[in-house]
Amino acid sequence: MIERIAILGTGLLGTSVGLALRAADFQGSIVGWNRSPEGAQEALSMGAINSIAADPLEAARASQVVLLAVPIYATLDFMDKLAPILGPHHLVTDVGSTKRIISEAGTRLYNTPDRAAFLPGHPMAGKERGGASLGDANLFRGAVWLFTDDPHAQRSPQSAALVKGWRECVSAMGAKTLDLDPARHDELVAWVSHLPQFLATALSALLEERVGDAPELKDVGGRALREMTRLGASPFSMWRDIAYTNTEAVDHALQALEQRIAHLRENLRTPELRDEFEQANRFRRE
Amino acid sequence: MIERIAILGTGLLGTSVGLALRAADFQGSIVGWNRSPEGAQEALSMGAINSIAADPLEAARASQVVLLAVPIYATLDFMDKLAPILGPHHLVTDVGSTKRIISEAGTRLYNTPDRAAFLPGHPMAGKERGGASLGDANLFRGAVWLFTDDPHAQRSPQSAALVKGWRECVSAMGAKTLDLDPARHDELVAWVSHLPQFLATALSALLEERVGDAPELKDVGGRALREMTRLGASPFSMWRDIAYTNTEAVDHALQALEQRIAHLRENLRTPELRDEFEQANRFRRE
Repeated sequence: MIERIAILGTGLLGTSVGLALRAADFQGSIVGWNRSPEGAQEALSMGAINSIAADPLEAARASQVVLLAVPIYATLDFMDKLAPILGPHHLVTDVGSTKRIISEAGTRLYNTPDRAAFLPGHPMAGKERGGASLGDANLFRGAVWLFTDDPHAQRSPQSAALVKGWRECVSAMGAKTLDLDPARHDELVAWVSHLPQFLATALSALLEERVGDAPELKDVGGRALREMTRLGASPFSMWRDIAYTNTEAVDHALQALEQRIAHLRENLRTPELRDEFEQANRFRRE
Repeated sequence: MIERIAILGTGLLGTSVGLALRAADFQGSIVGWNRSPEGAQEALSMGAINSIAADPLEAARASQVVLLAVPIYATLDFMDKLAPILGPHHLVTDVGSTKRIISEAGTRLYNTPDRAAFLPGHPMAGKERGGASLGDANLFRGAVWLFTDDPHAQRSPQSAALVKGWRECVSAMGAKTLDLDPARHDELVAWVSHLPQFLATALSALLEERVGDAPELKDVGGRALREMTRLGASPFSMWRDIAYTNTEAVDHALQALEQRIAHLRENLRTPELRDEFEQANRFRRE
């Protein structure tokens, strides 16, 4: 049913979607666009897209499904520009890491019978470094792909069918879909995704200050240290938009963690330390 | 040269040492003892030891090298009991995670010409769960094995030769050795080992409280969350002794992290956030 897809942004996620669709035997056309031409060229040479678009808006108009795989503010910008030029035979969807602001824009600009559909999406997969060259057909295998759809959307039959078709594509890529309310989404990912990232950034920055000048001392930490700081390599360019669009929930989660660490610290020599370890053990029970 | 080794404590580390020595073609005898007989039986059936000792002190006396692979306070207890019954043809060494207190006991009770040698050691390798059954001949491959030897030790020629022989065994197991002052050791591992552990415990305990009742929500975090909380499974029984014997340095490191997280949190919407990410990126530069 879906025969023409445009991927706007062929970074790690956009390129991986193209590769995963091909691996799932998607037979239609995939046109790609990227802010830096090198990224589009790389996605093309990897087989993630089969042509490069000169004009992203033109490419979107000529497609049925438009996947926005760019940072959050660039996604909002594309949503603004695409809404007036697309119609009820189009679906726009995205991969942005916060969903409240994007879902509000979707409800405001899309999802009426005479307009394109917008389906807010968020695959919980990634790598600590970005770029087309790290694209991976198996990136979404076993991962959760969240949707925060608008229950009051009034879609044309064509665009409603595209929504259904895209959900099937996501399943075909090996992801498990889960539907959430946008505000609940942003609160949840603040705990299970944004908190671990900002924490790894703070830990890595602190350790760089304390032992960064002695490379042999980094080795001492071994696998445990490597894992706890792997996300320290994540790029500011992506996380800035997340910090801006989910500030309150992230602030709340970080403050709760500061208090929890202080509590543990004040109990290094009391029986309370056992309770903290047992509570932590429960989170990791099989 | 070394022909008889006693491993007191056949948990994860003790069993792994036995397996690694065998893999490195050590031809001598390895006798094992464990507080719970099941652990000793498991190590025997895996080939990590070739006999089980009924009495650990008797086994130590009949060996040349005694490896203490038990928690820190149990190590100190064995050091007390072994010092009067061993002599200048013995070496006692250990794998404890803090070294100041153990090294002080070594200087006080060992390392004179008429006494056994004591070499404080600390392999920077492990798993978040313990036990003989997880023993692994490759656990130390590429890992750093720290020593905090006493520069003023006055050893008999026999025990000095055993020290040299044990260092060769450690290299043969695939580890890189590094010598540190005991106080410097405890400060360094507070940053690169104890800080990541207590942080993972606090994070896991917090997340158990917030999302622990909804298993499907844990999946949402994906690989990043799994890595950041893997150490949450670590047992209190091991970390209690570390918290007790390195309290000041761990307290200092945790407090520095609390401040760093608060700093990042207060700058979620300022240009300072970029500096934190760039500092973190430097820690993870290749």
